[in-house]
Amino acid sequence: MKKFVTTLVLAGLAGSVMAQQALKPEEMIKYRKAGYNFMAWNMGKIKANLEGTYNKDQVVAAANVIAATANSGMGALFGPGTDKEVGGQTTRVKPEFFKEPDKVKELAMAYIKETNELQKVAATGDAAAVKVQFGKTGESCKACHDKFRKD
Amino acid sequence: MKKFVTTLVLAGLAGSVMAQQALKPEEMIKYRKAGYNFMAWNMGKIKANLEGTYNKDQVVAAANVIAATANSGMGALFGPGTDKEVGGQTTRVKPEFFKEPDKVKELAMAYIKETNELQKVAATGDAAAVKVQFGKTGESCKACHDKFRKD
Repeated sequence: MKKFVTTLVLAGLAGSVMAQQALKPEEMIKYRKAGYNFMAWNMGKIKANLEGTYNKDQVVAAANVIAATANSGMGALFGPGTDKEVGGQTTRVKPEFFKEPDKVKELAMAYIKETNELQKVAATGDAAAVKVQFGKTGESCKACHDKFRKD
Repeated sequence: MKKFVTTLVLAGLAGSVMAQQALKPEEMIKYRKAGYNFMAWNMGKIKANLEGTYNKDQVVAAANVIAATANSGMGALFGPGTDKEVGGQTTRVKPEFFKEPDKVKELAMAYIKETNELQKVAATGDAAAVKVQFGKTGESCKACHDKFRKD
């Protein structure tokens, strides 16, 4: 029984480690770009709602994507070897990103906070409040782009 | 006053229409591929949790992304001109996708239902129930891939 349990535990740990390490650097870059791109589409939808006809359901759905993406643990997609183009996957991340983990964490936490708040405000259907919070969310994106993204 | 309101309404409608039509076909393809790719990463995380050490928070976060993505109105990203490669953006969608809207809707509704249920079950932390629902979700993805995706 003990051996059986030990085997399960080891298998579990192995699975966990594998889950983290099974991705090639180019796959990490591909997935993180996918996350940012899909978020961009959803940010664009909220912007269009604020500038055009406001549809609460569409804004809620978009804010849900943005918050869920921010909370998905994308830090795992910035592993070793993902600091430059690899396997045909280009990246705009600056080398500084990998040298200033505390600053990265600070910006990431601020961004998560703003997207969570955007999700909350979107659910109220208050377009004016969404506009304010959308601005703050965009600023939290831009803060990281300005510091850690090329061009 | 009437003219002012009319102008606002027209501006609103114009903004709304622009929001739907501002995307080029290659942008629609890029965004929908981003959504599917980011979902694939999150499906992979749940699979790794089920096969390895189960971390409730990670599974909840991943299920939130999957459900939010499914509910984001991706149908808008299958507009005219997105049935084949355009602007350097390849696509695996089959021509049949654009000819069988009722079947597309049926598969999309089933997939949304399963992802919503996955999100609900993940929140309970019941790994065995998540495993069952993860299987159903995967089947709902596969049903569309088998019918409307090349290879």
